[in-house]
Amino acid sequence: MSFPNDLEIFKNRRDLLRIELNKRSFEEFIILKSENIYYLTGFYGKDSNSILIISIEKTVLLVNFIYYEDALNSVKGSDIEVILYEGNSIERAAGLLDRSKSKKIAIEDSGLEYLTFLKFQEILKRSKKSLIAITGIIEALRAVKDETELEYIRKACQITDLAFEKLINTSSEKISKFSERLLGIELERLLIAGGGGGRSFDYVIAAGDGSSKPHYISGLKKTGEDILLMDFGTIYNRYCSDITRTIFLKDLPGASKIRQIYDIVLEAQLKALEACRAGIRCDELDAIARKHIESYGYGKEFGHSLGHGVGLEVHEQPTLSCRSKTILKENMIVTIEPGIYMPGLGGVRIEDMVIVKKNGCENLYKSKKDFTFLS
Amino acid sequence: MSFPNDLEIFKNRRDLLRIELNKRSFEEFIILKSENIYYLTGFYGKDSNSILIISIEKTVLLVNFIYYEDALNSVKGSDIEVILYEGNSIERAAGLLDRSKSKKIAIEDSGLEYLTFLKFQEILKRSKKSLIAITGIIEALRAVKDETELEYIRKACQITDLAFEKLINTSSEKISKFSERLLGIELERLLIAGGGGGRSFDYVIAAGDGSSKPHYISGLKKTGEDILLMDFGTIYNRYCSDITRTIFLKDLPGASKIRQIYDIVLEAQLKALEACRAGIRCDELDAIARKHIESYGYGKEFGHSLGHGVGLEVHEQPTLSCRSKTILKENMIVTIEPGIYMPGLGGVRIEDMVIVKKNGCENLYKSKKDFTFLS
Repeated sequence: MSFPNDLEIFKNRRDLLRIELNKRSFEEFIILKSENIYYLTGFYGKDSNSILIISIEKTVLLVNFIYYEDALNSVKGSDIEVILYEGNSIERAAGLLDRSKSKKIAIEDSGLEYLTFLKFQEILKRSKKSLIAITGIIEALRAVKDETELEYIRKACQITDLAFEKLINTSSEKISKFSERLLGIELERLLIAGGGGGRSFDYVIAAGDGSSKPHYISGLKKTGEDILLMDFGTIYNRYCSDITRTIFLKDLPGASKIRQIYDIVLEAQLKALEACRAGIRCDELDAIARKHIESYGYGKEFGHSLGHGVGLEVHEQPTLSCRSKTILKENMIVTIEPGIYMPGLGGVRIEDMVIVKKNGCENLYKSKKDFTFLS
Repeated sequence: MSFPNDLEIFKNRRDLLRIELNKRSFEEFIILKSENIYYLTGFYGKDSNSILIISIEKTVLLVNFIYYEDALNSVKGSDIEVILYEGNSIERAAGLLDRSKSKKIAIEDSGLEYLTFLKFQEILKRSKKSLIAITGIIEALRAVKDETELEYIRKACQITDLAFEKLINTSSEKISKFSERLLGIELERLLIAGGGGGRSFDYVIAAGDGSSKPHYISGLKKTGEDILLMDFGTIYNRYCSDITRTIFLKDLPGASKIRQIYDIVLEAQLKALEACRAGIRCDELDAIARKHIESYGYGKEFGHSLGHGVGLEVHEQPTLSCRSKTILKENMIVTIEPGIYMPGLGGVRIEDMVIVKKNGCENLYKSKKDFTFLS
């Protein structure tokens, strides 16, 4: 497969952003979020206080001395001017904007701190410019993945599949010696050994009835109980994977409640996967899984949304919730992860990641989903 | 040692906060940051969208259904009213504030998002109330630790010492088989096995010349080079530890540049530790280490502050920087971590955590600091 080169990809993103800014009659846009700066320039400096200014004609990246060399080496595009600032980055950025003719400046509001907004506003006011926070333009662009992004995420998911396979080929005796926390570490070790860049989020590794809490915090509990819910993932070239499997440390009779729940969740997940395609609305897709679960009387026990986008962040646009009217587009990547949680008994969640296609979706995982118990 | 019970500790914190609010003529204070909500109530719900309202007479905690049971079980104080909200938490909180007589409402600005501020402001405006963002009141209280906090942090540091000891008793042959990332995983495994709750931040494990970047991101590089800089830590009962040691995979002659730098950094660190006590200003303490390093001509190569507070967060108040006029108080906990970084050659950083005392400080680590090479 031949990809456009990096320079073209990143330039194309900046061009698309400029079209969006133009539609909204803005000539200058301040970008602060590390992932968005990376997406547009190729430079990633988490918590580095870097500032990107995209104007109709220029792209300026402000970084401090710790990140300056990195920035020079990583920016994709000879049109990107990298400026080393000393002192306050906001003062410096506002100083640059001072010279522009534009009277209204846009700033992205995603993750924007109140104090940062105030500081920018105060400085820009001196030159009679107004500051306007705008929502989600870059996030909307990021939701649809290009070929390189698809490839990186595919790879992150392959690494994840491999780690899961290694794990379920471990004996239940060995697994049950791990505490939840240490099993999380073991999973991360397998992912890194397989080429991953570490964890993409704080894992949920829940043994026994801990699995009934969707936001369970793993503890020192041994994993040698019936249920083992594992929600984990890795990073490859900055792109995330996210998977959940619920497995069992011993066989359960078909009549047991947890096994029944397992089957209901799996059916709900398969139905949603079957329905997932470009053109469907997020709330409609959520409803397909939800109605199946509700039909068995467990509607209240499925207390979260069906899924979310994944990319540079493990949670990004779109959100597959009952309130989202967003329409899925080709090459969005989303999770499909219904669950049923029974306090005191346990919970089951099954999560895949898919690429949305015109007439369906491509599941990025091969990891086993049938009821699985370790022997 | 006998401690006041939990209920008293948490009540005392709320009382101290009320005194601060009273000084500033506020009767209602909105708190959103998870660590601050925990500090005042005993309930910790990271990213749970919970809201705490402390007024002169009441304490109200708003949580959603996922966290409701946890909140009921964990709040410390029968005076804390836990309210389950559905829908939008800000609407609900503003609704509660509507009934108060107070015309100006305070909100903490630490980590406050611009959109959250706007939403609160808009709703409160309907009942002619103004919203005022205030800075760092709770952070200032948190900077001085009470007896239970000191005990938890002591324990986190002991666990950290133990993991480091195990690591340096590993042969250089074995260590050099780890990539940086996998060594990070191994350290975290040792910390968890020793009773820690996982990593307190994303570790910096840097081999060879990677050590010259203070914000290095660990990669797949093998650790079998001369220098191995390890900046890591764990969590115990929600409290963090943070340590850095720079060790060597083989002996270096006394005349080698890195070894000379090692000695300069260590002397600077010992001087700062010697000077650290209640009453000294942060910038004065920073200057003590900095002047030592400057006297050898490496001032520019020590490109960060001397240290920072540690507690519920791994970076909190106070900041030991050349710009901070904060005066250290008894029972603050700070890191002392000078470093020298030589691009292309490598870097050395040595970091301890100490409790500030009246006439000195108590080092929380016993981990070896002399030039150490693995055999």
